Amino acid sequence: MTRKASPSSDKTRTDGDFVWTRKDLLGLDELSPQEIVHILDTAESFKEVSTRSIKKVPALRGKVVALLFFEDSTRTRMSFELAASRLSADTLLFSSKGSSVAKGETTLDTARNIEAMGVDIFVIRHSQSGAPHLLARQLTSSVVNAGDGQHEHPTQALLDIFTIRQRLGRLEGVKVAIVGDIAHSRVARSNILGLKKLGAEVVVVGPPTLVPSAITAMGCEISHSLDDVLGEVNVINMLRIQFERFSSSLFPSVREYHRLYGMNAERLARCRKDVLIMHPGPINRGMEITSEVADGPNSCILQQVTNGLAIRMAVLYLVSQATR
Amino acid sequence: MTRKASPSSDKTRTDGDFVWTRKDLLGLDELSPQEIVHILDTAESFKEVSTRSIKKVPALRGKVVALLFFEDSTRTRMSFELAASRLSADTLLFSSKGSSVAKGETTLDTARNIEAMGVDIFVIRHSQSGAPHLLARQLTSSVVNAGDGQHEHPTQALLDIFTIRQRLGRLEGVKVAIVGDIAHSRVARSNILGLKKLGAEVVVVGPPTLVPSAITAMGCEISHSLDDVLGEVNVINMLRIQFERFSSSLFPSVREYHRLYGMNAERLARCRKDVLIMHPGPINRGMEITSEVADGPNSCILQQVTNGLAIRMAVLYLVSQATR
Amino acid sequence: MTRKASPSSDKTRTDGDFVWTRKDLLGLDELSPQEIVHILDTAESFKEVSTRSIKKVPALRGKVVALLFFEDSTRTRMSFELAASRLSADTLLFSSKGSSVAKGETTLDTARNIEAMGVDIFVIRHSQSGAPHLLARQLTSSVVNAGDGQHEHPTQALLDIFTIRQRLGRLEGVKVAIVGDIAHSRVARSNILGLKKLGAEVVVVGPPTLVPSAITAMGCEISHSLDDVLGEVNVINMLRIQFERFSSSLFPSVREYHRLYGMNAERLARCRKDVLIMHPGPINRGMEITSEVADGPNSCILQQVTNGLAIRMAVLYLVSQATR
Repeated sequence: MTRKASPSSDKTRTDGDFVWTRKDLLGLDELSPQEIVHILDTAESFKEVSTRSIKKVPALRGKVVALLFFEDSTRTRMSFELAASRLSADTLLFSSKGSSVAKGETTLDTARNIEAMGVDIFVIRHSQSGAPHLLARQLTSSVVNAGDGQHEHPTQALLDIFTIRQRLGRLEGVKVAIVGDIAHSRVARSNILGLKKLGAEVVVVGPPTLVPSAITAMGCEISHSLDDVLGEVNVINMLRIQFERFSSSLFPSVREYHRLYGMNAERLARCRKDVLIMHPGPINRGMEITSEVADGPNSCILQQVTNGLAIRMAVLYLVSQATR
Repeated sequence: MTRKASPSSDKTRTDGDFVWTRKDLLGLDELSPQEIVHILDTAESFKEVSTRSIKKVPALRGKVVALLFFEDSTRTRMSFELAASRLSADTLLFSSKGSSVAKGETTLDTARNIEAMGVDIFVIRHSQSGAPHLLARQLTSSVVNAGDGQHEHPTQALLDIFTIRQRLGRLEGVKVAIVGDIAHSRVARSNILGLKKLGAEVVVVGPPTLVPSAITAMGCEISHSLDDVLGEVNVINMLRIQFERFSSSLFPSVREYHRLYGMNAERLARCRKDVLIMHPGPINRGMEITSEVADGPNSCILQQVTNGLAIRMAVLYLVSQATR
Repeated sequence: MTRKASPSSDKTRTDGDFVWTRKDLLGLDELSPQEIVHILDTAESFKEVSTRSIKKVPALRGKVVALLFFEDSTRTRMSFELAASRLSADTLLFSSKGSSVAKGETTLDTARNIEAMGVDIFVIRHSQSGAPHLLARQLTSSVVNAGDGQHEHPTQALLDIFTIRQRLGRLEGVKVAIVGDIAHSRVARSNILGLKKLGAEVVVVGPPTLVPSAITAMGCEISHSLDDVLGEVNVINMLRIQFERFSSSLFPSVREYHRLYGMNAERLARCRKDVLIMHPGPINRGMEITSEVADGPNSCILQQVTNGLAIRMAVLYLVSQATR
């Protein structure tokens, strides 16, 4: 792979000599700033592949990527699946429905068995925080965390950070608001970790019941008013509302939530002109975001999806190199 | 691709200069006779591929075909999946169960997101009439309708028409009976549209509650007696009984239906010797058709399935050419 | 394919001139000793493929392997799927959930329809004993039995026998205990058939309610005490406990079962030093086997999984050669 010339030369770029050594990608917590940037740079090289007429490179030909989804996920699963096949890997899908999980087998035994079939990389989503880390220690294959409990969702944060760097040309000094249910969001956690490491500032925004005060230990500010931060941020990342949580007493009513934390045209008008509106999807139109904002020029929601493929190609490629 | 010599030279064949320009295949309603015939001719070229020892051509290598099934379908899904992989495309399956649909995302947002991952062709089945048309207008990728509500199922009609042309050598002047629940059948609608455009005659047969009189506006005759039309038709296409509809008052009892509209050996004896018996499958043996008819020499039910693959290869190939 | 030099020259090896002629693999019942050994030898050649960096051979390129699972199975399905793609075949998955089966179609019609799409090999799991045999007679495609009712599970037995030969270097005179619910186990039946044909001795062990006395007709001994046979066997194959059967009066309590028939360190100490502990998986740790035994040096549980891939590659390859 040839590395493209970097669009800027700030410290959020690595030089060509960096060597990736991790067999797993578990979270942004353990990555150095240089490692994160190396993933972003590698993703940039892969972005070009998806614009070709024949969208395939032979990088992982004859390798097997097993997708182990102990929790449902359509779009993350599809994104990893496409990333793997764009690298010419074979994919093997395991979802916990109708599987040996129902027969009482442990997650580790399931993974060990699948590894014994000759799998090179596991992509794992699990409802228990830390499940991918446990597996990574026990398996010689690579493990990529596709979301574990309320812990981390590293590829989502990487694609968010990639998109910010792509649109704003830098990360250093960029101010990002993350809005919503911070307490239960692995997307928020991974974003905060990665953004802080690369020199960005983060303010988390939401009702007091959904923003734990301990989160300031991660180096971010807290605000309970979206209106207060609109003018001062470069990026607003709207978390998805998990409707199933509305039944709990932690959450205001849906209408109240939208009134206080929904992104709409009126609020957008009070933002910086070049503010980026992000959302991990799937969006609830008219709820955390109105259609005119979601589909407007400040939104980069679909760009995030496109970049997600490049990030996942980069991650699969890098971890496979480390285990050679 | 080399075009094989046409087995006949009637007006249901196109010459080699025809250029396909549609990025989508939504229904037979909007197709010209020449376009329909061009699909049939292209399918004829692809039929040969399936007889090779290595059943693959590189036509769509590096392309991605996403199968979006918002409604269950085993055989149509498998047929499109095989057609795509026989053209060397990668496939990506999305079924609405356990997906973001449950999370409140609109069909359009789901499709836009998947398109952003770099999908070239969408094959869509949806319970709402017109859903594929809506998506086709909004997406730059190609859209192929794999059945929408009670509206159209174009590839099923194309494979039916292909099979008739193959077996009878012509379509002009052929008389086709379509038997069953005409009112709710997208297979019937697409067949009527296509057959009429290519010069065939159609008589729809069924109980008055299931055959709307307005259907004559599509240029077909109506009969409420299968026995009355047996002797005068070249083809009898038995629609599948949807048992879930029998609970409604529109439907006679199952036994009564079979007595009046079931195809059996006794009725077959009163047909033309070379009558074709068709069925879109899956068949209910002993219900709309008896085993001796379904498995007999006049039946072309399995041939329809085989031809379906060639038709779907042709459609995927043609729409992909149009968006280049 | 080059045949590797055999590690031993006993009668459980075939010479290079053997020609496989069966289009189907339905069970070990109908196979000759020479045929079984030929599968094992072919699997040995394929084992090497899985150790390569690019784990693929073009043997079945352009062929289609349809996996028809009328009964749930994660690991057998994944093993066949990987085996097929390692041979470069395309795979097509059909599971009976949400399929035409629900629409009343017969198994034979389902298979015939899928065959009409151009499928070369069917891999079938079915809850009815004999279903694959019925299909094999009606289809021109190859049929591989992936487990039918309480009848046979030939590839599981072949991988078990392959693993014994690999670890002990021979099969002739080897004594194998099969422990558990013999009465309902297709794994037990296929193992007994295969082992006896290759000159091994078999003792089946379990409570009288789960070990039919008629099983001696297959040439094996019966014991109701695991402790009695520990010292005299070379291999102990622990069948999986089907918890769903515990509700029946045939079964002792779970605790009682473990006390009498569970494999643990104390029992292992009374076995031959080189005894092999096998289990078809998924295992219930602490139930039919304790963790220290399952993960210890005598266990070959994960090796069985790895060998399963080679066996399934061999079987798919051989049946595809027979239909050329």
